[in-house]
Amino acid sequence: MNLEKFLNPKYVAVLGASNDTKKVGRKILDNILENKKTKVFPVNLKEKKVAGIKAYKNVKDLPLKDFSELLVVFSIPAVFVVNELKEVASLGVRNVVIISAGFKEFNKEGAEMEEEIEKIAKEYKLNILGPNCLGFINKSKDINVSFSDFLLDKEVKRKNNIAFISQSGAIGSAVLDWIRDKNIGLSYFFSLGNKAVLNENDFFDFFKKDKETDLVVAYLEEVSDGQRFLESVSALSKIKPVAILKSGRTSAGSKMAMSHTGSLAGSNEILLAALKRSGAIVLENIGQLYNIMEIVKKPLNIESNKITLISNAGGPAVLSADEVLEGDLELLSFSNKTKEELKKSLPSLVNIKNPLDILGDADSDRYKKSLESVLSDEKIESVLILLTLQSVTNADDIAKEIVSLKKKYKNKLIVTCFIGGKGLNSAKKILSDSLIPDFDSPEEAIWSLSKLLNYYKNRKSLRVYKKESSKREHDLDGEFLVDYLDSFKFFQENGLDVVKTKELTNNNLKEIKYPVVIKYTGPDFVHKSDKNAIFLNVKTQKEAKNILDKINKDKESCLISDKNYAIYQEMVKADMELILGLKKDSVFGHVIMFGLGGIYTEILKDVSFSFLDITKKDAIKMIESVKSFPIIKGARSQKGVDIDLLASFIVNFAKAVKQNPEISEIDLNPVFVSQGKIKIADARIVF
Amino acid sequence: MNLEKFLNPKYVAVLGASNDTKKVGRKILDNILENKKTKVFPVNLKEKKVAGIKAYKNVKDLPLKDFSELLVVFSIPAVFVVNELKEVASLGVRNVVIISAGFKEFNKEGAEMEEEIEKIAKEYKLNILGPNCLGFINKSKDINVSFSDFLLDKEVKRKNNIAFISQSGAIGSAVLDWIRDKNIGLSYFFSLGNKAVLNENDFFDFFKKDKETDLVVAYLEEVSDGQRFLESVSALSKIKPVAILKSGRTSAGSKMAMSHTGSLAGSNEILLAALKRSGAIVLENIGQLYNIMEIVKKPLNIESNKITLISNAGGPAVLSADEVLEGDLELLSFSNKTKEELKKSLPSLVNIKNPLDILGDADSDRYKKSLESVLSDEKIESVLILLTLQSVTNADDIAKEIVSLKKKYKNKLIVTCFIGGKGLNSAKKILSDSLIPDFDSPEEAIWSLSKLLNYYKNRKSLRVYKKESSKREHDLDGEFLVDYLDSFKFFQENGLDVVKTKELTNNNLKEIKYPVVIKYTGPDFVHKSDKNAIFLNVKTQKEAKNILDKINKDKESCLISDKNYAIYQEMVKADMELILGLKKDSVFGHVIMFGLGGIYTEILKDVSFSFLDITKKDAIKMIESVKSFPIIKGARSQKGVDIDLLASFIVNFAKAVKQNPEISEIDLNPVFVSQGKIKIADARIVF
Repeated sequence: MNLEKFLNPKYVAVLGASNDTKKVGRKILDNILENKKTKVFPVNLKEKKVAGIKAYKNVKDLPLKDFSELLVVFSIPAVFVVNELKEVASLGVRNVVIISAGFKEFNKEGAEMEEEIEKIAKEYKLNILGPNCLGFINKSKDINVSFSDFLLDKEVKRKNNIAFISQSGAIGSAVLDWIRDKNIGLSYFFSLGNKAVLNENDFFDFFKKDKETDLVVAYLEEVSDGQRFLESVSALSKIKPVAILKSGRTSAGSKMAMSHTGSLAGSNEILLAALKRSGAIVLENIGQLYNIMEIVKKPLNIESNKITLISNAGGPAVLSADEVLEGDLELLSFSNKTKEELKKSLPSLVNIKNPLDILGDADSDRYKKSLESVLSDEKIESVLILLTLQSVTNADDIAKEIVSLKKKYKNKLIVTCFIGGKGLNSAKKILSDSLIPDFDSPEEAIWSLSKLLNYYKNRKSLRVYKKESSKREHDLDGEFLVDYLDSFKFFQENGLDVVKTKELTNNNLKEIKYPVVIKYTGPDFVHKSDKNAIFLNVKTQKEAKNILDKINKDKESCLISDKNYAIYQEMVKADMELILGLKKDSVFGHVIMFGLGGIYTEILKDVSFSFLDITKKDAIKMIESVKSFPIIKGARSQKGVDIDLLASFIVNFAKAVKQNPEISEIDLNPVFVSQGKIKIADARIVF
Repeated sequence: MNLEKFLNPKYVAVLGASNDTKKVGRKILDNILENKKTKVFPVNLKEKKVAGIKAYKNVKDLPLKDFSELLVVFSIPAVFVVNELKEVASLGVRNVVIISAGFKEFNKEGAEMEEEIEKIAKEYKLNILGPNCLGFINKSKDINVSFSDFLLDKEVKRKNNIAFISQSGAIGSAVLDWIRDKNIGLSYFFSLGNKAVLNENDFFDFFKKDKETDLVVAYLEEVSDGQRFLESVSALSKIKPVAILKSGRTSAGSKMAMSHTGSLAGSNEILLAALKRSGAIVLENIGQLYNIMEIVKKPLNIESNKITLISNAGGPAVLSADEVLEGDLELLSFSNKTKEELKKSLPSLVNIKNPLDILGDADSDRYKKSLESVLSDEKIESVLILLTLQSVTNADDIAKEIVSLKKKYKNKLIVTCFIGGKGLNSAKKILSDSLIPDFDSPEEAIWSLSKLLNYYKNRKSLRVYKKESSKREHDLDGEFLVDYLDSFKFFQENGLDVVKTKELTNNNLKEIKYPVVIKYTGPDFVHKSDKNAIFLNVKTQKEAKNILDKINKDKESCLISDKNYAIYQEMVKADMELILGLKKDSVFGHVIMFGLGGIYTEILKDVSFSFLDITKKDAIKMIESVKSFPIIKGARSQKGVDIDLLASFIVNFAKAVKQNPEISEIDLNPVFVSQGKIKIADARIVF
């Protein structure tokens, strides 16, 4: 979608603009009027003038030749929206914001009206934001098409570099209000509302090219199109950080979310796997949303998650070291050269190591010298400076030294954590005015560093997701279970080894090399263990015949379907049993699941997820990320699995599914590991 | 220890009080002088007057008859401290604060001087705070014997009800500085420093009786005496909440802590078990330390961890529902009566359930009505009110309504979370001035509620720990391994079932009912599996004889000690293998460890800890808290363990150790579960 004219309209018409200053329509009008360059037309059936400006009865009355340059904002009761929308669309309007509520979120009639809106949008190729939203802000052009009073504050000193997208209007207005306090520069704000037409993915795509924005933050209650989400977010993450707060993670949360937006919450594990695959920074709460906005003040070229920590107090340094490890960061070891330099400039009492405790009597000079020694080391990319106000600490002077070093070392990430209260206010202002990310507590600083540095670290190897084609080659009526032997053939043809499996018939009873495993398969034996359908260690032809006779008798007497039959398999002594599965998630599409079999998967729920475009490297990570990995690798004297072989096995499995996208579900349970080989012992494929 | 005169001295002498206003000694003098009631004597060798007050050359020159009413503060170089301390002690001084640094934390000579201080303290029964500390503040008497400038701020409106103990001076001063900003009322502050004499436990004991203090918060880098800690903290927790931030949890943190204070960090798992046993609220970072101070504004009588959530926005309500579940809280279900009342007063659109979303256009009247309906329900103890600033939200009016309802419902816990920034400042001030805990983000509010409510919930069943007697009946030279058969006898005599085990000799080879298990035992076979010392399924007398001959030959040729011998055990078919262990932790004393055997304990480290005073209820919790509990209980078609029986087994195990406190280590690995019985199959006891 081309959002150029939507975001930078020459003209804006506000339907529902009013002389009542308390009305939403009026508030929007006032906000747009803040910008002198945009021409605004109030539209009001009764008034001749609104806010002192000539008002029009209808959009068609506006003195315009080309309506494609006009953005129309709807702030009128829901029942009038559909008709008005048709009218403006037929005039040539292509860009619309529907502030009005009373649609899908309200009742059945509302939902029907919303469907109408979608249809009109499709017909006329409209960009529509909303309905049921606050509008949007384009700070770079100083256009505020929303009913927030954000723009009125012009105190922010930093570059307007943070874009914020919110599905919830309330969270949107709360965050906008918070930003006013915090010297956070906003580039864009979008309130998504019901996402009838434009959704988060449209804006993620837009931000790929937007030069103002260094960080995109999104609050979402549901993901609109999982496959496109993976593609848009991974493409954007490859360029700049995207941080996503998704609500409804727990069962209580998602129950609440359903009643709140009518959205279908997917499973949290799959969501997390999708966010990870997309390269997004995963936020868990509003505090983290604030913190990530604080730390990204410009784009950086950082490659590692190693940090250096300088502190004038042992206590906070100890607490921070705890957080560093828990936050998946590393403490860099100083090079000999840096050690020498630090030794030269610091008191002999200082223990030269990271975290570097420069002692309670550290003045601005000591902070300066140690910071400079550290910053001049090429390998050191990120530094966290801790300070607690002690008797000799001159926090303002220290802040000033940090600011001047930051100017000299532009490419390094310098983050501060000045811990205390009133006594630090002026120092904190010095830091903030010079765009140094500063936090109140070590854990916030380190959490933010962890998210950002790990984003940079992972970005190198991040691949842009290419969404699965949504075409279905043939439409199937409901579920379709693949024949048991066919499914074995399918995997074999796709390079996946299987346990030798053949149909058991009266003709081959004699030739079989006993012992064997016999299984009943078919529609009546989908869950085999439930039905006494597996016969292990069948030792004689006689035994096998009895088992075969039983199923044939049941078929003859129509107790079970004619499609059921018996198979036999060679007996395999398995060193380990694995589970590999596939499901088609309603939001994110095909998802692969892997786990150590038996109790680990079924009782301890110890599994990991991935997507169909999995590489061997991804597969290794997927295997490593289950808690029972030490067992898979081989614990104690037990033989482990060849991880490389297993990773290839998973990649081949994904490829097979990719070539047959109509598959909706696969269960390979168990997959045997036996004498170094990996073989499928039982398979179920559903189309 | 009696701290009465320490905390409320009639007279204070400051050694090192100076006319140089930058000196620590002068700062302390000035702080004490703030309080007109306390008589202060500067002590200075050179000056006649300090800060305009008559100075004395020596403490003995002071015009006092009874030196027991005098608190002496040392702010002089470390090298002079020992001699001065002896002198003042011999005068009859009993209460001392040593601010001076340069002791254990500094170097070997310092450590020796600190030992001298300890000796003098023992001899004269001195209360000494420090050395290497900031001093203390007793806010209820307005005495500030520290070099913080905390008291100078008198803006705090709430009751001074929070005591803060800090082992780190830097964390202490940072938190004091923070408190000045936040309307947090401090009752006491203690900077522990090196804890040569007084330590955290002395103050925990003191706070049991202190009526000013509603919450005790402690920052610790090491626990001074684990057994006393368990006793003091559990006794205090029974009366009022104690929140503890212990640094050095991770390996990086504890390495740092060791170099910082020279403290021996115990294992984190044992520390957590100890904090849990003591009933303390466990803090993980400084942010949580701030939050817990915010929420405890008075003592409450709360019994459940159920909360009610009211919000004017869906987004924050969804996020909060997520946090509620993750935070181990419950959302209370409304009674029919409350539902009816809410229905009457709220718009029909509102979905009457918890969390209660009273919609974006909620005004102060709607907040009032819904809050009143909820508060009047007897079962509802705790309410969290969320607010985001939307177009019609008058936050000030809503805050006022909440304040007036709070006065009416004094026994309920009302917590607010007004989310936003500048637009909420005045509303937040109204809440804060009326002592309503208010947070900036739902996760902080819910985290704090979770910690506090779960404290109250658990307090009911909390038992005060009684510390183990530290007497040893006989001193042993080093480790002493108990004879294998004796250890089996020991457990049998203490009501713990064992697998039948006898010595294997040439005499009984014939009588044995084969098959049996044979094991070599003794000093050379402590780790049996390493040395081919276990022989399973020995089927014949001949086989057994060969095994016996081998060990006897090795003994005869002095390859192994004479104390080794062979035993045989009946073959037991185990349904499950458990591990039960005991170790004597250097900090906390005897700790019991439990886990499902094999891979679960050894590779997945899935174990839980408890203490010797374990009850059956505790033991059940201990069993339930391992991740593999579903397997222990019986997963799939597998037979599980009788949890009740297992709990009794663990309690008996603890009793056996309690009666033999010299035991320093036990390994029962494996313990078999077989045909419903629990039997020790292998045992190692070390004294």
